[in-house]
Amino acid sequence: MSDPSASSSAPLSGTERTRHRRLREQGRTGREALFEVLRAGFVCHLGVVVDDVPMVVPTVYGFDAGHLYVHGSVASRSLTRGATVCVTVTHVDGLVLARSVFEHGVDYRSAMIYGVPRVLEGDEKLAALRCLTEHVAPGQWDYARRPDRKELAATTILAVPLDEASVKVREGHPDDADDPHDVWAGILPLATSWQPPVTDPRAAHHPVPPHILTRLPR
Amino acid sequence: MSDPSASSSAPLSGTERTRHRRLREQGRTGREALFEVLRAGFVCHLGVVVDDVPMVVPTVYGFDAGHLYVHGSVASRSLTRGATVCVTVTHVDGLVLARSVFEHGVDYRSAMIYGVPRVLEGDEKLAALRCLTEHVAPGQWDYARRPDRKELAATTILAVPLDEASVKVREGHPDDADDPHDVWAGILPLATSWQPPVTDPRAAHHPVPPHILTRLPR
Repeated sequence: MSDPSASSSAPLSGTERTRHRRLREQGRTGREALFEVLRAGFVCHLGVVVDDVPMVVPTVYGFDAGHLYVHGSVASRSLTRGATVCVTVTHVDGLVLARSVFEHGVDYRSAMIYGVPRVLEGDEKLAALRCLTEHVAPGQWDYARRPDRKELAATTILAVPLDEASVKVREGHPDDADDPHDVWAGILPLATSWQPPVTDPRAAHHPVPPHILTRLPR
Repeated sequence: MSDPSASSSAPLSGTERTRHRRLREQGRTGREALFEVLRAGFVCHLGVVVDDVPMVVPTVYGFDAGHLYVHGSVASRSLTRGATVCVTVTHVDGLVLARSVFEHGVDYRSAMIYGVPRVLEGDEKLAALRCLTEHVAPGQWDYARRPDRKELAATTILAVPLDEASVKVREGHPDDADDPHDVWAGILPLATSWQPPVTDPRAAHHPVPPHILTRLPR
């Protein structure tokens, strides 16, 4: 597996904070690239620092034009006020099988977002929870029972500004066609797709609602 | 979406460091549960602290009985010697569509590993790279060209001890069958599967090798 720092064809790799980008500077291209990555999934990895040690927590997210909303009770309990978090969303599209082990890698799309999160309350929290729910499970905000006062109090939503982020995409075939080791090379794609819904036996007296049935494969 | 701290049926959530488990204390069950999660994937999210800010980097991994091996150039450049990292591996198995928005969640399997990584060199590095390559792309270590001295020098492999880890699994239907809001409920499964290999046009004179063709769906 090649070193991400050594080659632009590198496998899955992160972005140094020092090379971070302000979305305002990236303009529409950068912002649209970020939204594309965010639209393609609903689980992120939220990184916080607890007693000088990193903690990486998988959690669900939603977003609008200005903020990422994450469901973050564990993280919020550990959060120092004003501390920056890192949220990473990654889609793995396939294995890059090169002629050399060194050029092996992963086709992927990834976004890293840095920001100081705000714990939402009141109407803001409700609106963010709706945004998050509709991103993760479109149609359910109107179909399921909305949270009551007690449930809302037991829910923690963090808003992370979408100002500082970087997007990385690696796609296509391996880059070592000129390698003297002349063997098969290519891509082994990895696909993620929704499967037919499985009805809870205790809800079998209801048909599967159309907004679930028509959910497009991701 | 319910608060992970409020319910065992909670959606995707992390594990507090304060509730961490030593694998030795968990015995065979804990260790086997960890290996099951690690076997089911090949991309992790590596969390490190850089200038008091968390950085979460997606990268490939392999493992043996005692260590997780991660491909970590970006992280290793930023790593403070002796600093603890957090590596999280997450598999999303489906959406839990409950009667109430509050009980919505995700069926998932996740492992969080804490440890002080060691940058490997020499024979240890080569052995770990082989382990990692064979985990990510079984059969390729013998089929592709192995790294030469220069490539090996340009590769960074971190070894994280598999001593401190926690595994979380959420499976099955929503837990709110007694909710007064009587609507359809169930699971929308999410499946990840390998697709037929795509041959690099510049390698079309070679057949797809059997070890790629027979790769089982994950």
